[in-house]
Amino acid sequence: MLNAIDRQILKEVADLEEIPKGAYNIRKDGKLLGREVSANINIKTNKKGDGIVIEIKPGTKNESVHIPVILSQAGLHDVVYNTFIIGEGSDVTIVAGCGIHCGSDKSEGHSGIHEFQVMNNARVTYIEKHVAIGDGTGRRILNPTTNVVMHENAYVHMELTQLGGVDEAKRINTATIGPKSVLSVTERVMTEKNQFAESRNEVTLSGEDSKANIISRSVIKGHSSQDFYVNLIAKNRCFGHIECDAIIMDHGINQTIPALKALHPDAELTHEASIGKIANDQLMKLMSLGLNYDEAVDQIIQGFLR
Amino acid sequence: MLNAIDRQILKEVADLEEIPKGAYNIRKDGKLLGREVSANINIKTNKKGDGIVIEIKPGTKNESVHIPVILSQAGLHDVVYNTFIIGEGSDVTIVAGCGIHCGSDKSEGHSGIHEFQVMNNARVTYIEKHVAIGDGTGRRILNPTTNVVMHENAYVHMELTQLGGVDEAKRINTATIGPKSVLSVTERVMTEKNQFAESRNEVTLSGEDSKANIISRSVIKGHSSQDFYVNLIAKNRCFGHIECDAIIMDHGINQTIPALKALHPDAELTHEASIGKIANDQLMKLMSLGLNYDEAVDQIIQGFLR
Repeated sequence: MLNAIDRQILKEVADLEEIPKGAYNIRKDGKLLGREVSANINIKTNKKGDGIVIEIKPGTKNESVHIPVILSQAGLHDVVYNTFIIGEGSDVTIVAGCGIHCGSDKSEGHSGIHEFQVMNNARVTYIEKHVAIGDGTGRRILNPTTNVVMHENAYVHMELTQLGGVDEAKRINTATIGPKSVLSVTERVMTEKNQFAESRNEVTLSGEDSKANIISRSVIKGHSSQDFYVNLIAKNRCFGHIECDAIIMDHGINQTIPALKALHPDAELTHEASIGKIANDQLMKLMSLGLNYDEAVDQIIQGFLR
Repeated sequence: MLNAIDRQILKEVADLEEIPKGAYNIRKDGKLLGREVSANINIKTNKKGDGIVIEIKPGTKNESVHIPVILSQAGLHDVVYNTFIIGEGSDVTIVAGCGIHCGSDKSEGHSGIHEFQVMNNARVTYIEKHVAIGDGTGRRILNPTTNVVMHENAYVHMELTQLGGVDEAKRINTATIGPKSVLSVTERVMTEKNQFAESRNEVTLSGEDSKANIISRSVIKGHSSQDFYVNLIAKNRCFGHIECDAIIMDHGINQTIPALKALHPDAELTHEASIGKIANDQLMKLMSLGLNYDEAVDQIIQGFLR
């Protein structure tokens, strides 16, 4: 049921060599390719039929669910609405992501809109990887959205990655963080050629003692450009930190626009940003160890995006 | 010609005990109170009659010009357009600023729009202080604007200060920085009660090897609020740094919104922001040295705004 391209995409997007163990839902070219549920993790098509509902039973521990999307149909622009209900006290890993294979001059795109209800004391690791491959000249468009609502004492860690091949990305992440809940986001985006990526984030620290740590790492090669926005809104006693680092190579351009809104006197918000080229002394050091220029650059970029 | 209130305001705004030495222009309640020019510094009323033109001869060194504004007329909202032409290779200090004395329930306001043409190799220190005093209940409004154009290899340092008493401030600073030119800005704003201050900054690094260093320090007491915006636009090989620190006391609120726009691949832009209450360990340390709580807070705030 999986062809060679499907396998390559699944490997890149979800680090899967085969159909995964445990619960999964694989979507290909806008259709269901395979689904498996487990005793604690249910997956069903939603009422409108435009996405899935993933329900994690309260107390589920150390389980994972994979929901990769494969797109390799010329001209297809797939849109899905997925909902995750993460039961109280559970601790799970969700691996999502989309891989496009473009073999023609027609554009292909995927928009995944993911809603998360994270119940009290639940812990979630969410890994979302986007890639695009293939020899076609059609534009590859990936517009992921995550909307997270965290109840009390919940913990969500999100790893959001787009490492090349995607021509156009409009990334949106919103989160509302309840009392004692902690959100940690690391977004890594690499663009090259004439690619454009935009990331818009709106994080509301609404509960007492809520925390957020947002890290953005961008590598901007060729004539590509990236815009990063984050709106950190503090409505209670809370702590929020944003870190934005961008490495510009070739003719890349970058706009980084954080907004720190301390609307409560006990809010503590910090931000650090740094945009620039690779530091010369770092390059020199690696080259003195025997690497040539390109190898040294490559090693620094890999380390930066790890 | 100066009454007791005038003297108090001049002392606060321009650190003057008497009429200053050298060139000056003192404006009171919308009218000229006194003017003096020097061999190298000319001051004249502009063509429209709504402000002054200050011309600094090329090569002028170690001279200063004072242009304070006094406002103590109930209901008056004074607007002036001043132009500074800073000749090539000069090195001067400009002391501006406005003091409002409000003795009634009528509002009083001043808007000073200051344009700077800073010629090649010129150095300028610009000190602008805003205060408001008096027992009146009328609103005190101060809306200063600076628009700076820096030619080649010029240096401008701006100290922009508003330390209390001002109910409403809309502060605008724009700058275009030419090749090898350096702009350094330190803005200090303290608000209390129900005061509101907004600072909008737009700094364009347009010349090769231009530099900008923007520092904002805010203290937000009572139920006051402050918004700080800075748009740092890099159009050439350049270096830009923004630092925004805000101390929130009582019920103060703050929004800090920097935008780093690296539109050139050799731009290097950095930003640091920190919003929060006074650190407890700092307070403890000072109190262990014999200060009471209020004295300790006061000392920290003074140090922060120095």
